[in-house]
Amino acid sequence: MSGDKQSLAAPRGMRDFYPDEMALQCRITDTWRASAERYGFQRYDACVVESLDLLKRKAGEEIVEQIYAFKDKSDRDLALRPEMTPTLARMVAARQGSLDLPLKWFAIAQCFRYERTTRGRKREHYQLNLDIIGEPAVTAETEVIAAAVDALLQLGLSLTDFRVRISSRALLGDILAASGIPIEHHAATFLALDKRGKLPDEKIAELLTEAGVASEAQGGVFDVLGLTDLDQVRDLLKGRASAALAELEACCTGLTAYGLGDAIVFDISVIRGLAYYTGIVFEAFDTEGKLRAIFGGGRYDNLLASVGGRPQTGVGLGFGDVVVAELLAERGLTGSDEARGRITVGFMTIDQQPIARRMAATLRSQGEQVDLALHPEKPRAFFARADKRRFAKAAYIGPDDVTQGTVRIKNMVTREEEPLPV
Amino acid sequence: MSGDKQSLAAPRGMRDFYPDEMALQCRITDTWRASAERYGFQRYDACVVESLDLLKRKAGEEIVEQIYAFKDKSDRDLALRPEMTPTLARMVAARQGSLDLPLKWFAIAQCFRYERTTRGRKREHYQLNLDIIGEPAVTAETEVIAAAVDALLQLGLSLTDFRVRISSRALLGDILAASGIPIEHHAATFLALDKRGKLPDEKIAELLTEAGVASEAQGGVFDVLGLTDLDQVRDLLKGRASAALAELEACCTGLTAYGLGDAIVFDISVIRGLAYYTGIVFEAFDTEGKLRAIFGGGRYDNLLASVGGRPQTGVGLGFGDVVVAELLAERGLTGSDEARGRITVGFMTIDQQPIARRMAATLRSQGEQVDLALHPEKPRAFFARADKRRFAKAAYIGPDDVTQGTVRIKNMVTREEEPLPV
Repeated sequence: MSGDKQSLAAPRGMRDFYPDEMALQCRITDTWRASAERYGFQRYDACVVESLDLLKRKAGEEIVEQIYAFKDKSDRDLALRPEMTPTLARMVAARQGSLDLPLKWFAIAQCFRYERTTRGRKREHYQLNLDIIGEPAVTAETEVIAAAVDALLQLGLSLTDFRVRISSRALLGDILAASGIPIEHHAATFLALDKRGKLPDEKIAELLTEAGVASEAQGGVFDVLGLTDLDQVRDLLKGRASAALAELEACCTGLTAYGLGDAIVFDISVIRGLAYYTGIVFEAFDTEGKLRAIFGGGRYDNLLASVGGRPQTGVGLGFGDVVVAELLAERGLTGSDEARGRITVGFMTIDQQPIARRMAATLRSQGEQVDLALHPEKPRAFFARADKRRFAKAAYIGPDDVTQGTVRIKNMVTREEEPLPV
Repeated sequence: MSGDKQSLAAPRGMRDFYPDEMALQCRITDTWRASAERYGFQRYDACVVESLDLLKRKAGEEIVEQIYAFKDKSDRDLALRPEMTPTLARMVAARQGSLDLPLKWFAIAQCFRYERTTRGRKREHYQLNLDIIGEPAVTAETEVIAAAVDALLQLGLSLTDFRVRISSRALLGDILAASGIPIEHHAATFLALDKRGKLPDEKIAELLTEAGVASEAQGGVFDVLGLTDLDQVRDLLKGRASAALAELEACCTGLTAYGLGDAIVFDISVIRGLAYYTGIVFEAFDTEGKLRAIFGGGRYDNLLASVGGRPQTGVGLGFGDVVVAELLAERGLTGSDEARGRITVGFMTIDQQPIARRMAATLRSQGEQVDLALHPEKPRAFFARADKRRFAKAAYIGPDDVTQGTVRIKNMVTREEEPLPV
């Protein structure tokens, strides 16, 4: 028996969505789609199965270890994608001659990572991907971030619930140069930035020493770690021209013009993938800092070349379903109005069934979502079901209604009834 | 170089959807969802990865051979599902004590079969699944078929474009009994029914002989094969009571009441899976008979028990994306109005960018889908892009527009312009 019970569960780390859970899931993915389309992105898609070789070409070491790889019956090396970006790169590179740039594409993609399933971590999730390829101007970053923030707002969150931390890999290069930190210490500085806030300063100092940064040189590194706003960056640059700073400022200006300025903060510790991003990078977090990143992304210049295409600049963002669902739960925003607008039609005896069916057909033709009872029910059973399943309205047809020529539709929330001619 | 080109293709048998193709794909899946919801079905979902053991418990021999099976790093036997039904059975059985029956669920599921990719056959497709579990009345069949037909009509097809062929496994049992065909010849008769229309009668006679049906007994089998309408069935039953006949008639009556009678035909050759279906079975085909089945399904009584649940009756239907897309293409109905309603906003110099951005923000807040130009463009380039990408409307902002305080929005179809205050 327990063996049978066991086998009724989803495979380890995979999720089932029963209708109640699916309502929230659909609300998230519908909102992603609506926001992406409102910002003029076009949807694309590809199969969750990719060639292992393609995935390895882009992925970092850690990701490669977590890939669900398998061989098909012709001994091809395939895998369930851990992310959508290599597929995007492949699709764009394959038609690089004929696609008009800049292109603005989005996908809602299931992605797999073979991780330990401790702490409720799942092995699959869905991710909104927004990408703009072929646009050097920082308007690309602005549109991508604004579209993702729009989705958070449409889901019911407010600008005080989250922060978009933004930095720039190129600006960091200018800062390191202005700080006099020698090039051989840059990797150690990136590491220290990444650990900033997660480890106490003494531990970071130890890491720097291990990485060969002598104590006397660590002051400069900690000066960089301590930068908290763009005014301090300007001071540190001492009037040196920095195209990267101008771009970051323009990005923030654009987001402010969209009314999102309060949610945007400069944060020099945002690094993300060292190998992948080349310009502005950003990550959104819940304001209280309890959860992992809600979304993250940045500018990449080497993606297309990495799969054999011609070099082309791009800006991309990934936005998973899991963390935003956690945040919605924290804020009490997981409620769904899935049943709102749904109508159930019931009847007392088989004699009223044709009338119930006609009524359902009429309401459906008017665009309503109508559940037609599949068999006769007593009124008490019918209305109990309508309540339990949270229908918005319920219409019940008995012999008397047919005689009188009217059926009453009951609003299950207000309990008001309105008559409808049979 | 050709090696690189090769690697930019999707894995063999898997599909990429570029935005133009995705527009049709979304039209199909959006329509499925809308029709299922209009008929009161609730959406569920589950991961495309299932346990191999579960899939084997339900699948027939042919399907097991075509399963994409693999082992994860803990040596678990997993697979990409070839169909959604075992997953549905698992999910319902796992909560069989708490779910209210009858339940009406739908899913839009990607499914995989490892087939030869000859003749453009793909190895993955999407499938609408509609299931009603726990309802013995034939209204379950009626609702499922009507919802699927609704989707065909909403996609632009008409009732003359397709036929739903319907039969009943239980009625076939009654017919065989009334025909005096001995039980040991029933399997051979099913085989003959399945081959009817695909092979000439002489070949079918040979198959029957091979299966041990003597020539003198073959007349009765061919009489059954020759039944073409329910009146002939009634004659053959000679007034014997047949609950199965009454149910099939009630199903047709319900569909006729929905206005779908002309598309429904009795067809005794509809058999479908011998092991799986137990009652009414049906398949929809294009009227010209050029394509494979558009959708198919029927009543099953043993599904839940097959995964370890308590026995429960159900009615289900599978509706793939590939054949309906072929039929839409045949009928010239693959056009998409994806771009309709989309607006693009451009500007001449960087000075007009803030105004363009404000205009985009205003239009988006009104629910419009707005593509905001990412960089300044000359008017000719802007309108050429707007034409090529089939935007519905285009607004272009130059210095003069700002001075005059109005921007013109051009309808790209009618070429009419309407002024909008800046």
